[in-house]
This record gives sequence, structure tokens and C-alpha cells, in this order.
Amino acid sequence: MYKLVLIRHGESEWNKANFFTGWTDIDLSDKGIEEAQNAGRLLKEAQFAFDVAYTSYLKRAIKTLDYVLEEMDLLWIPVYKAWQLNERHYGALQGLSKTTVAQRYGEEQVKLWRRSYNELPPALTKDDKRYPIYDAKYRDIDDEFIPLTESLKETAIRVKYYWNREIKTQIKKGNNVLIVAHGNSLRALLKFLDNLTPGEIIDLDIPTGDPLVYMLDKQLHPVDKYYL
Amino acid sequence: MYKLVLIRHGESEWNKANFFTGWTDIDLSDKGIEEAQNAGRLLKEAQFAFDVAYTSYLKRAIKTLDYVLEEMDLLWIPVYKAWQLNERHYGALQGLSKTTVAQRYGEEQVKLWRRSYNELPPALTKDDKRYPIYDAKYRDIDDEFIPLTESLKETAIRVKYYWNREIKTQIKKGNNVLIVAHGNSLRALLKFLDNLTPGEIIDLDIPTGDPLVYMLDKQLHPVDKYYL
Repeated sequence: MYKLVLIRHGESEWNKANFFTGWTDIDLSDKGIEEAQNAGRLLKEAQFAFDVAYTSYLKRAIKTLDYVLEEMDLLWIPVYKAWQLNERHYGALQGLSKTTVAQRYGEEQVKLWRRSYNELPPALTKDDKRYPIYDAKYRDIDDEFIPLTESLKETAIRVKYYWNREIKTQIKKGNNVLIVAHGNSLRALLKFLDNLTPGEIIDLDIPTGDPLVYMLDKQLHPVDKYYL
Repeated sequence: MYKLVLIRHGESEWNKANFFTGWTDIDLSDKGIEEAQNAGRLLKEAQFAFDVAYTSYLKRAIKTLDYVLEEMDLLWIPVYKAWQLNERHYGALQGLSKTTVAQRYGEEQVKLWRRSYNELPPALTKDDKRYPIYDAKYRDIDDEFIPLTESLKETAIRVKYYWNREIKTQIKKGNNVLIVAHGNSLRALLKFLDNLTPGEIIDLDIPTGDPLVYMLDKQLHPVDKYYL
């Protein structure tokens, strides 16, 4: 039996301000820092230990992971950062207030953009400063993988690619794995881990800073899951 | 021409208290945190950027690196942690006050233990709790590499091994490398980088939190070096 723990980063400044964030590299709020430290303390009290950790290229996830590892006295374990674990790219919605967008397009459309599996938010144009191609973080990544917008399905493809290529191997070696990522990159992961339908994913929401523990069998099928 | 930057971690609680630390995993002091953040700001102002960073298994170095990368907005770069970059193991002196040790053994002996290339501090016995074999961090490392005490020469052997196997390759690929490590693991590195004699190494001291920039030629021989 394998154990896997997933954590959505603590509250960010833009979660607090209710903005669409996506790949915008926004820092944790003070509450987010507390959530991260609290997650670390919970895991330590429950006597969890990790051999390796994964996170995204975005500081709200990296710093959440660092706070968790610090509380657990595990700062020394290997940490791999992968752009494939980034939040879903929110296209031209990035940086806009969710309230403003709801007033302009209606609540129903916003729910579709935020929750459905196939829906694409309005795309960036290639000259838009928010296009990640202009960010040094992504300079080594093939242009074709750098999104102008993303559906949750497209997010799931890159998350699954990285899961298959890197994370699965570590779990199957018997290593205890921690993943600290984002609301939608974790929803994408749960989509194929729990074998959810596009309909079931709509109502799935993952709270910030709350460790989600999966018990997996030899084929990495979940046999149990619970929030700590 | 290659660029390499070395930083000794910021002041730790035991630097402040004047204790022998070695592999004891002591945290940064508040002054140490400021030193680390300041190093990051200096590097940013001087428009340095790094492609990859190396540090030890000890939190005073890992956290110094994290503070530096945060100031530089480079938290996303790959970070490799290596026990080979740990501080020199100080044997049975670890956890003792430098003043007490000087009173017991004399200033001259303490200077030899701290500064000479070949001198071994008194060794731990194998049942001593300070023997790193009892620390989860080192469980995957061959027993024969886990020290009961170390001369600077022995420290230099492991540092050089890791330099040859990992760091050199990165530099020769053209990557800008940052190493955040310890007083003696950095002295060990400078010993072979600057081709110093055991006599010359005695008076070499590296200040905490002060970026040391090396310009290296194609054979990785230093052509210039300066503190930022």
C-alpha cells in the first residue's frame, strides 16, 4: 500500500482579493503562510514523513511546500519543481476580478470557465505581456506547450504526463510523496486518479492548505482518501 | 568565461552563541535571515541570475539559499541538496562552546582544530547521539562516508567529489551556478579552486552572507574573484 499526500497552496494575495490568477506568480497572504505552517504541523503530529516532494514553478506553491517541510524538519529532502504542476492558465481572465468578470459575462459563464472540463477561457493574444513566453521561467520549454489559455482538460494532459513520467515511478519505488500544487492542477490530478467523469469534476473543490491523504494499491488505484 | 557565486550561510544561532556546530542542524538567527535577504538584494541589484543552485542538507544553508532566491525572484530554479556540501564534521567538539574548549585545550590547539588542513578534532564514539548515522537525513548514505570527525582535508575530498561529479558539468554547460554552503565546506572548495597550500588555507576565512563571485576560464581556473 502506498501513501500520497496532496496540498493546495495556502491562500494567495489574489485568492484574498478574488482575482483570476492562473500562471500569474502571486505570493501567499499572511493567512496563506499560516495555513501552510498549520498543514506542516498537522502532518508532523500525524507522524507523516516524505522522501520526495513535487511542486510547481509558482511561488505560492513553492513557499507553501517550504513552510510545510520546515515544520516537519524535512527541508533537506529532494524537491522537484515542474511547470506541468502549475495552476491552469486562465487566459485573458488572469488579473481580472471575478466579480467584474461575473458582471460582464454572467455567473453561469464564470462557473463554466472555472469548473467545467472542456471550456476555454478567452485566450491571450501573443503580444500580451501575460503570455508566459515572455517569462524567464519558461524559456527552456517548447513554445507549443506554453498556453495562451487552457481548459481543465488541457491542464490534465500536462499533469498526467508529469505524473506518468516522474511521480508514479517515485511512488512505485516505495517513496512517500508530497505534492503541493494548485486548485485546478490538483483537480486535474484527481480527475484521473479517482477516474471522475467531466460531470463529477464540476463540483469538486479542494480547500487551501488542507493535506489530502490518498492510500493507493499496487496499481496506484485509490483504496482510501481523507483530509487530515 | 564562466561565473560562479559562493555564499556562506547567514549567522546561525550557534555562530551567535559561539558553539562548535558542524553537522548539528541549527537554524539561522534573525541577523542571519537579514544577511541572507541582503545577499539576495545585492545579487539582484548587480543583475545576477542563476540557472541552478546547490546547497547542503543543513537548514541554515537551505534557508539562506531560499531567502536569496526569494529576493531574486528565482524560487523556481532547480535546487540540489547534497550532504557532501555540509559543514565539516567537528566530532566531539559539536555542541561545545568555543570558549570552554579553549580553556580546556588552549587557544593554540583550538586554532589548529579550526584552521589547519590535516588536524582531526576528537572523534565521536559510535554510540554518541551526535553520530549522523542516527539522523534520518543520512540513512541512504553508505556508513563508511558518515564521519565521527573530519579534518578539513577529508571535507575537501567529499566536496571535490561532488564538485567533479555534479557542479563542474553544470558550469561547463554554460549554466550560472550558485552554491550556498558553510565556512569550512567553502574553504575546502577554495582550497582546490584557488590551488592553495595547506599553509595558505589556515588564514582563509569566509564572511557570512557575502556573495563571493568567481570568474572562471574554460578550464575552470579562476581569472578573477571579488566579494559583491
